Amino acid sequence: MTSLHSVVNLRDARKVAIFGGTHGNEMSGVTLVNMWINNGAEIQRSGLMIKPLITNPRAVEKCTRYVDTDLNRAFTPDNLSAPRNEDMPYEVRRAQEINQMFGPKGSPDAYDIIFDLHNTTSNMGSTLILESSKDDFNLQMVNFIKQAIAPTSCSVLLNEHPLLQYSTSRSIGKHPIGLEVGPQPQGVLRSNIFESMRAIVKHALDFIELFNGGMEFQPCMVDVYRVSEKMDYPRDKNGNITAMVHPNLQDGDWKPLNPGDPMFQTFDGSTINYEGGSTVYPTFINEAAYYEKQQAFVMTKRETLTANGIKAYKI
Amino acid sequence: MTSLHSVVNLRDARKVAIFGGTHGNEMSGVTLVNMWINNGAEIQRSGLMIKPLITNPRAVEKCTRYVDTDLNRAFTPDNLSAPRNEDMPYEVRRAQEINQMFGPKGSPDAYDIIFDLHNTTSNMGSTLILESSKDDFNLQMVNFIKQAIAPTSCSVLLNEHPLLQYSTSRSIGKHPIGLEVGPQPQGVLRSNIFESMRAIVKHALDFIELFNGGMEFQPCMVDVYRVSEKMDYPRDKNGNITAMVHPNLQDGDWKPLNPGDPMFQTFDGSTINYEGGSTVYPTFINEAAYYEKQQAFVMTKRETLTANGIKAYKI
Ligand SMILES: [Zn+2]
Ligand SMILES: [Zn+2]
Repeated sequence: MTSLHSVVNLRDARKVAIFGGTHGNEMSGVTLVNMWINNGAEIQRSGLMIKPLITNPRAVEKCTRYVDTDLNRAFTPDNLSAPRNEDMPYEVRRAQEINQMFGPKGSPDAYDIIFDLHNTTSNMGSTLILESSKDDFNLQMVNFIKQAIAPTSCSVLLNEHPLLQYSTSRSIGKHPIGLEVGPQPQGVLRSNIFESMRAIVKHALDFIELFNGGMEFQPCMVDVYRVSEKMDYPRDKNGNITAMVHPNLQDGDWKPLNPGDPMFQTFDGSTINYEGGSTVYPTFINEAAYYEKQQAFVMTKRETLTANGIKAYKI
Repeated sequence: MTSLHSVVNLRDARKVAIFGGTHGNEMSGVTLVNMWINNGAEIQRSGLMIKPLITNPRAVEKCTRYVDTDLNRAFTPDNLSAPRNEDMPYEVRRAQEINQMFGPKGSPDAYDIIFDLHNTTSNMGSTLILESSKDDFNLQMVNFIKQAIAPTSCSVLLNEHPLLQYSTSRSIGKHPIGLEVGPQPQGVLRSNIFESMRAIVKHALDFIELFNGGMEFQPCMVDVYRVSEKMDYPRDKNGNITAMVHPNLQDGDWKPLNPGDPMFQTFDGSTINYEGGSTVYPTFINEAAYYEKQQAFVMTKRETLTANGIKAYKI
């Protein structure tokens, strides 16, 4: 190995959180977390404190994405430091509470690892979402999970974009990691999606236990899809959409979209092609929650990251 | 032909309504109806008044099923005759308005035909929903549509059950007919589902035009699935579900469910089998909107109806 990719010593992990219901109508995480709150045997690991939490209980109660504003965009420095008052959007108050319990964001007291469980209506399969290309611990965990569930595939989405990254619930932890599993309609619990998510959490916790137990993980390479740009639906001057995702693109998450490929189909049957300069890999294609965010899909580029090896030390 | 199944003379049809947005997050109907309100050329037929309507505009605005209560259950005699007041649920007031415009329900002034466009998260394909096994006009229309779109299949659901039938928006018309197309998540517009629904409406309007033009439709037989019983998810004493639709049943709408077949899968992995006495044909399997209605799926029985021939007369 070169010195660039050696084995680094990291503190062992002590505090792990599993968030469900950050979006109250994404039923796999809501159901798993409620189940584990009732009976945590399945997620117990020796020497680890693992805390499952329903992050947006009011949205879960109403089976809606959020009540006032998207909780998974609410963990901004401004929100977290704002003086508390009762006129705040519910989710901003809730973000402050969660930050007190599991953060504070950026502090040494913050939880070591926070998993946040999501579903998508898009045909993305099992996806792990990272917020940093430099987090050896998370890259090693992702590598471990991918190997553990092979030959079932698990994609890795890297959202490290200066404008498109957002302030997630999990971002208050030292190692934030999102799980996004689909396709599943909002408000529906499908057994296949439920079991896929459950298996990934199991492998992730196994990894942490092995790491804490002293196992050395060798430097590794991880294929990721890096967020590069978002694409909105064609719209009229009133903001109403005038075209749908083209049938060739629908359900084609992670597949190459080449210049000239069909992208949208207008209501009168004409085709709008992708006119970008290079191949991209779309994902979150036709996600229900993203119409209001002016996003028909997000474009990504493929990239291979290299992670240092890691080994735990205890203090 | 025997005298039981002869050709009957029916008044020609004059007033046709196409409802979308009875459930505000079912995007095919919302989008088609808004499109036709903007430009009705596609739905014009000679001699016919065809009126597209967004039935629940507030729910459409919020992209939610309903605001206060399910509009598609709100057209009861009690609701429609209640003295108007501002404390009524929004959908009850709206039902009264719609009944004034397109009914009154049961009166000679009511619209002749009302189509109501719905989507489901279930894997039901294209489904026509009838409320009466005795409505020769609707049975002939359904027969025409089925033949027009063959070999693509189109199922017919007959909801004539004394307890499970409900007071739909379309029920204020003389010939109510529901279109239910899926699978499509709430809040999502898929091009394949959109085009399937659009094709069915086209064929339905063509049928009415041919009927008005004097074409005689011969007696025919129509295979339907008659609603027989509903099945809830297994639940604990707090009403929370304790099992999911079994993977063998998920997406198996219209396929036979035999005694002993797997029906639910509990969170700890055990299977609950169907213990009924005879084969049923489940549909609306794992529909998002029916969790709150305590319904995991509805059971149906296959049946073949016979319709009289029909021919129009003008007065
Ligand atoms: Zn989510
Ligand atoms: Zn509906």
